[in-house]
Amino acid sequence: MERIAVQTNVLKANQEAAIEIRRAFEQEGLLVINLMSGPGAGKTSLLEVTIKALQAQYHIAVIEGDLQTDLDAERIRALDARAFQINTGTMCHLDARMIARALQEFPLKGVDLLVIENVGNLICPAAYDLGESLRVVLCSVAEGPEKPKKYPVMFHKADVILLNKTDLGLPSGEDQLELEKNVKDVNPRAKVFAISCRTGAGLAAWTEWLTNAVATHKLKQLTAQ
Amino acid sequence: MERIAVQTNVLKANQEAAIEIRRAFEQEGLLVINLMSGPGAGKTSLLEVTIKALQAQYHIAVIEGDLQTDLDAERIRALDARAFQINTGTMCHLDARMIARALQEFPLKGVDLLVIENVGNLICPAAYDLGESLRVVLCSVAEGPEKPKKYPVMFHKADVILLNKTDLGLPSGEDQLELEKNVKDVNPRAKVFAISCRTGAGLAAWTEWLTNAVATHKLKQLTAQ
Repeated sequence: MERIAVQTNVLKANQEAAIEIRRAFEQEGLLVINLMSGPGAGKTSLLEVTIKALQAQYHIAVIEGDLQTDLDAERIRALDARAFQINTGTMCHLDARMIARALQEFPLKGVDLLVIENVGNLICPAAYDLGESLRVVLCSVAEGPEKPKKYPVMFHKADVILLNKTDLGLPSGEDQLELEKNVKDVNPRAKVFAISCRTGAGLAAWTEWLTNAVATHKLKQLTAQ
Repeated sequence: MERIAVQTNVLKANQEAAIEIRRAFEQEGLLVINLMSGPGAGKTSLLEVTIKALQAQYHIAVIEGDLQTDLDAERIRALDARAFQINTGTMCHLDARMIARALQEFPLKGVDLLVIENVGNLICPAAYDLGESLRVVLCSVAEGPEKPKKYPVMFHKADVILLNKTDLGLPSGEDQLELEKNVKDVNPRAKVFAISCRTGAGLAAWTEWLTNAVATHKLKQLTAQ
């Protein structure tokens, strides 16, 4: 009981911080993505191809969440994009207060799109609002088709679901079809893209969609002022 | 601070329950494996091939941990092996008290090998002792080679590390070699097997090692009595 009460307090404190951060993001006209997946589904690879496709048009910045290492931030900086690394130690997710602290050292003036790459974990990050505009969940076809059924909370709350590593699926395409069906069953409202960051398949549809999302968000903020 | 204190109490209560369970397992002469990995690394596929290889010689039972569904337990039962499904809801790991409760409904008399398949999560399960004899961590080559560096606690505490889906690695084998190097860097004492549950590559070495481990464990318990 004590544990549940503390968990409730933690989530309440997180929500209060998330409301503050969201307000700050909206004042900047910034589209913010909370990018989540299990370990090794390809979040950083997705960021690399997305940054390359959009950086001529938009200013993109990334906040990286990892238990340890700054390997992911280094991969982003190698593309001349700005990246801030949060190391969570043993903590299995990012929370809004970590983002608030990061923003004090990582000003976002002039940035159009901020991506927060969460810790690789298909469970815990789903409970923590980071003030994001969109929740994007990535799932690798190589993980098997039943993941949406077994980890429904993460998939249920997603605005966009990307099915990555389509090049590692069965030659028959059967596992990818089953994964797509399971995604639709758990979350019929999410926008779904099947992609391969390695071969480039399906990426044009995703980057076009995201380009429009950033433009629409900026326009909405301008007309609201 | 309050949160850290509660977490410490939770882990202390878990450790007390784990000591009790370990004593019960030892009285039965039972080898118990705590099988952990991120989502979709192939834990249930590994169990399927392992059960097929060992079930003529040993009685094997499985406790399955999943947020939702009993898909994994059904796959084990389809092999005529006994399986008990724990659904954790939103809880990101199994703990010793869940195992203690399961054992009340799932007697293990005559069982030689119990495998506890943990919730798919490369972070949180590492903190919870389940009374196991061995910690086995599974990692898919398709997750990329840097996982041991980014999730060091899980890898550091493992007795055995299995690198699965070697058939999905790069044709050059470069990513598998880098993964093996990172595993050794983080945990030089773990026994390491590179396998593919799909093609069967490397499985004979693993099942032979496990057969010996069960036999040695039984002998040790007999001579200790």
